[in-house]
Amino acid sequence: MRRAIEEAGRQGFAALVVAPSPDLAYLCGYGPMPLERPTLLVLRPGVDTLMLVPHLEIPLAAASPGGRVFQLVGWADGDDPYDAAARLLPTGGRIGVGDRMWAAHLMGLQAAVPDATFEPASAVLGRLRAVKDDDELVALRRAGRAADETFRQILGGRFQGRREEEIAADLGDLLVANGHTRAAFTIVASGPNAASPHHEPGGRTILPKDAVVMDFGGELAGYFSDTTRTVVVGEAPEGFREVYELVHEAQEAAFRAVRPSIAAGEVDAAARDIITAAGYGDLFIHRTGHGIGLEVHEPPYLVRGNTAELSPGCTFSIEPGIYVEGRFGVRIEDIVAVTPEGAERLNRSTRELQVVD
Amino acid sequence: MRRAIEEAGRQGFAALVVAPSPDLAYLCGYGPMPLERPTLLVLRPGVDTLMLVPHLEIPLAAASPGGRVFQLVGWADGDDPYDAAARLLPTGGRIGVGDRMWAAHLMGLQAAVPDATFEPASAVLGRLRAVKDDDELVALRRAGRAADETFRQILGGRFQGRREEEIAADLGDLLVANGHTRAAFTIVASGPNAASPHHEPGGRTILPKDAVVMDFGGELAGYFSDTTRTVVVGEAPEGFREVYELVHEAQEAAFRAVRPSIAAGEVDAAARDIITAAGYGDLFIHRTGHGIGLEVHEPPYLVRGNTAELSPGCTFSIEPGIYVEGRFGVRIEDIVAVTPEGAERLNRSTRELQVVD
Repeated sequence: MRRAIEEAGRQGFAALVVAPSPDLAYLCGYGPMPLERPTLLVLRPGVDTLMLVPHLEIPLAAASPGGRVFQLVGWADGDDPYDAAARLLPTGGRIGVGDRMWAAHLMGLQAAVPDATFEPASAVLGRLRAVKDDDELVALRRAGRAADETFRQILGGRFQGRREEEIAADLGDLLVANGHTRAAFTIVASGPNAASPHHEPGGRTILPKDAVVMDFGGELAGYFSDTTRTVVVGEAPEGFREVYELVHEAQEAAFRAVRPSIAAGEVDAAARDIITAAGYGDLFIHRTGHGIGLEVHEPPYLVRGNTAELSPGCTFSIEPGIYVEGRFGVRIEDIVAVTPEGAERLNRSTRELQVVD
Repeated sequence: MRRAIEEAGRQGFAALVVAPSPDLAYLCGYGPMPLERPTLLVLRPGVDTLMLVPHLEIPLAAASPGGRVFQLVGWADGDDPYDAAARLLPTGGRIGVGDRMWAAHLMGLQAAVPDATFEPASAVLGRLRAVKDDDELVALRRAGRAADETFRQILGGRFQGRREEEIAADLGDLLVANGHTRAAFTIVASGPNAASPHHEPGGRTILPKDAVVMDFGGELAGYFSDTTRTVVVGEAPEGFREVYELVHEAQEAAFRAVRPSIAAGEVDAAARDIITAAGYGDLFIHRTGHGIGLEVHEPPYLVRGNTAELSPGCTFSIEPGIYVEGRFGVRIEDIVAVTPEGAERLNRSTRELQVVD
């Protein structure tokens, strides 16, 4: 909270206001569900930190780690919480708002503090959260190892003749068996379905010569894993190996490009240039990666035009892909951390093409 | 979607814009996770319905039930999605925004359409969603029955000497065993912890003469159950029975007050007046209830000052409570539906005080 207030002051914000979200958990260790009753942490340079809390949740908030630091201000059902919030906020100036606050709460605040300008607080909080400390890196490494073991074990099972949703259920069970608190997502996209990057695994039965994209991750101690591997069943479909090697090469090139002070968009370019030069640029239909930590997707985003510079401790995915409609898709994804010298992979599963049964 | 557009027109909205959320699922059956890449359904009176979608999710959106109705407009990573959204929105007038849209997306839209006024879309969508159709009532009744069976079974187990978190885990397992897709919440608050309405179940061991508040629910076919019962271990603590009977009576009075056209706030008053008259008004520290459906909390809210009138098909909780700090708490909660004649309870578990081992 101290660092957030300092950075907010440096950037000219009069206040930051944060609702239940990963931002709030990061700032003060308090993690209630976001609800229609607003809970709002108010950080202001030069002013004591306050948190507006629904009256019935005061005991919960007081018992949280942040409860030792901020003063709680309760509001009761039937009162207007935005009027109560306005009394804690500056009457004007720039107010940073947590990205995930519900729009209904933001509109309530905008009506109650009409002379302020509201802007995304990610300008401050995204920057802080992007750089992981040692404890956070330990958690991300543990999650990465659990995902590696999940991939190793799924390779030993059968694919052919089983439905995508069965493999997805196995991935979910393995993520938990290997130490995750819960599975967060398990994309299994086979054959032509693999051309849809966010395919919802369904009833399709996996066939010989299918490529199968598996994109899976879970939560471990609040931090996430996120790995993608593409395998083939029995043998590769025609034209697949060339595409696979290209994605593999692009993933490698992006990894090698990572170093302190490089712009996030340049890492995207390192992968994209290789795929574009080979004539597949139009089929790489998404950015190269996203930050990861308390959220699966968070800053920095490795996307064209992002000039934000990477620093040691930044963690993000590198996941180029090529999607050939009606035929197959390929994506290879690792989580990496920026180090003083370059980068460290937090996932270590083999990236060589694996043939499964 | 047709009814939402009509109601939006009647209320003078130029457009509604809805991100992934229960609102979106209700309108078009599309339920992706809310993410930093905006997906935005745009409903405009007199204009064809459009949905802005991240390029990589076009196949998913096209396959959703709404995919037959709306036209998809893709935006690619690296482009500005809010500029793309502005091309689908009116340049001015009142735009209704789904309550749960992330603030970052709303601020992006506000910057891209500076001459429009943004207001909560719940004025339109909350009203539509509050009145359940027959299929929705069937789903809510099934969820209610599964919660009843969960309570019946938990009563047969042991409480004394076990930790709150163990009972909570049992409740979660029973919710699923009785037909829920997942458990959504399992509050178990024993002894003095029961004075905190949203207590997080922890390591406290349950003792003889404890009161134990259990507030539990799960999701079944997209709809939620939500039941609270308060039991005592062995025998009731001193002064408890009087408080229990008062809460019981208040719950009954609120139920009997429910009928078409009554204001939501009057149902709150029916419960509150009884508790206040007995001198416990200050210890009933929350509203009497909340709507329930695709969300655990949704309109209508049974809260002081809410003049919204109830209609047949409205479903909500009735859950008065009294919280005596340091000693115990009592809450009794059922889900009810407004009928043409009055109200129907969707939970049928006994409300008589149960003594457990």
